[in-house]
Amino acid sequence: MNAVRVNLVDTSLRDGMSSVSHQFTTEQVAAVARGLDKAGVGTIEVAHGIGLGASSIQYGFAAATDAEYVRAAVDAVRSADIAVLYVPGIATLGELDQARDAGAGTVRVAVHCTEADCAEQPIAWARDRGMRVMSFLMMSHKLGPAELAEQARKLESYGAQVIYVVDSAGALVPRGASDRVAALREAVGVDLGFHAHNNLGVGIGNALAAVDSGAHYIDGSLRGLGASAGNAQTEVLAAALERAGHETGVDLFALADTAERTMAPLMKEPQIIDETALILGYAGVYSTFFHPAKRAARKYGVPAREILLELGRRGVIGGQEDMIIEVASELAKTAG
Amino acid sequence: MNAVRVNLVDTSLRDGMSSVSHQFTTEQVAAVARGLDKAGVGTIEVAHGIGLGASSIQYGFAAATDAEYVRAAVDAVRSADIAVLYVPGIATLGELDQARDAGAGTVRVAVHCTEADCAEQPIAWARDRGMRVMSFLMMSHKLGPAELAEQARKLESYGAQVIYVVDSAGALVPRGASDRVAALREAVGVDLGFHAHNNLGVGIGNALAAVDSGAHYIDGSLRGLGASAGNAQTEVLAAALERAGHETGVDLFALADTAERTMAPLMKEPQIIDETALILGYAGVYSTFFHPAKRAARKYGVPAREILLELGRRGVIGGQEDMIIEVASELAKTAG
Repeated sequence: MNAVRVNLVDTSLRDGMSSVSHQFTTEQVAAVARGLDKAGVGTIEVAHGIGLGASSIQYGFAAATDAEYVRAAVDAVRSADIAVLYVPGIATLGELDQARDAGAGTVRVAVHCTEADCAEQPIAWARDRGMRVMSFLMMSHKLGPAELAEQARKLESYGAQVIYVVDSAGALVPRGASDRVAALREAVGVDLGFHAHNNLGVGIGNALAAVDSGAHYIDGSLRGLGASAGNAQTEVLAAALERAGHETGVDLFALADTAERTMAPLMKEPQIIDETALILGYAGVYSTFFHPAKRAARKYGVPAREILLELGRRGVIGGQEDMIIEVASELAKTAG
Repeated sequence: MNAVRVNLVDTSLRDGMSSVSHQFTTEQVAAVARGLDKAGVGTIEVAHGIGLGASSIQYGFAAATDAEYVRAAVDAVRSADIAVLYVPGIATLGELDQARDAGAGTVRVAVHCTEADCAEQPIAWARDRGMRVMSFLMMSHKLGPAELAEQARKLESYGAQVIYVVDSAGALVPRGASDRVAALREAVGVDLGFHAHNNLGVGIGNALAAVDSGAHYIDGSLRGLGASAGNAQTEVLAAALERAGHETGVDLFALADTAERTMAPLMKEPQIIDETALILGYAGVYSTFFHPAKRAARKYGVPAREILLELGRRGVIGGQEDMIIEVASELAKTAG
């Protein structure tokens, strides 16, 4: 296995927002971004946990606007590129334009793994304006390697410069991650990335397998902060990549300092794999369903585990959050 | 990769003891053992975190004697085999005899990876008395695959029935784990096992790699409870093994219930990878040095990180705990 240069992308300030109900202040975003930048992390994703334009009654209001978060991060860093997440159907091009005005250099256009078509318009828009464009195939465990590679070909044709296998449910094991990345490596010429969730305890294991199969952009978050079981823990990921013989260009000790002294005090609770997070990954349900499923379980008096297993059986995807209440209500009636 | 039957061994009540200062009561041990047994875990290791005979001023006094812990677990289970840890130099054959009288069916004889010779006497003693014998090659990252396999051959010749690659420092990445297990698979005919620590975030990733290379006994602990960054989290390990196509024979939901409702309330703090745990794995230092290094850092006013990195450079092993104070004191003088 060849040693490669891996580009770490930190999403503590975007995916991690989901774990703090999108309540990081701009000062906190600046402090974390400054630490990441000093440690040599090249790309830092910020703003609402569900991406641009998601601050709403449905997804929860954030403590600042997307543009305010972007500007706070841009002003705090010397070298890092600031990235934003764009989910078609939630974000608008107007909001992307505001983020670009605020200094975001990268947009990550995220679509469900079968819906690459939805990424065409925002990718073209962003490329026309000189932004770097990454694109996410979310819930990648739902498609086999060959079908996923077909979707990646579309993203490449639209202009995506980095295409990500995104394990939104934390449902993949290392072989599943490496098979998918390897299929994409055969199918497209652009750079590949991998975004893990840790529900099956293999966030970093999957990331290492993805690197071995050709992914050179790897997402992580400090202390693992992220939806449900969280992400690959950036500072640990950096150490594991180094021990596996790869180069990340980051200062491990500076990164560990930022995790311990800047991020940890901001966390509402430690990032662990509890029963709900485990079953979410096992059932293959979207990570952002974690807190709503727990709330529905309390409201309807049914176990979160049963709700998640039924949602998994129904194959729900992002955008179908209303199904959580529907399933919980049905289970409560059946039990009653 | 073939699907295999994996035998889960839970060490929450032995390795996990280190995280609760060896203070589980016999009632708590019985409750956890009962849950593990009902979930179908076949082997449950109990007693002091450092093994038989370690309850002392040096390693910390436990809340009960080893024999009391063994008897509590034996009385609580229907099918599971109760195991004890035997570290030559700390445990005595008399203590092993007491544990056997109390109902322990398995002994795990643990030696530093270069010191297989030290395992000969206790292995022979236990085999003569009909106990099942597993044997640990601790700090396995310190030897390359071929040298480790040489030590395993000795353990096999003494009568060990399962030989473990033990990543005591949590310093291995998946390739390091699989290379070592594969070398042992070539060298010996007995069953192989793997015991992870999660300092580099790859406890479960390493366990999956070890299974793929021929290890059929895998250690874990509920909620990951264990020294420093903890172990492979048993309930998550079970789910990941199933998703990787293997059989464990356990009831995942019963296991997750035991983790959430019996173990979690007993934990003093959640099992996370903090800066000290990360650097311990990165430096390749024995996991049980975690709390003493933190204490020495506070006492001498030097960063735990610096102490661990220096201990790593000096290549300290289990039994050399006095080096922690020596290094901390020297660093304090240098800084002063």
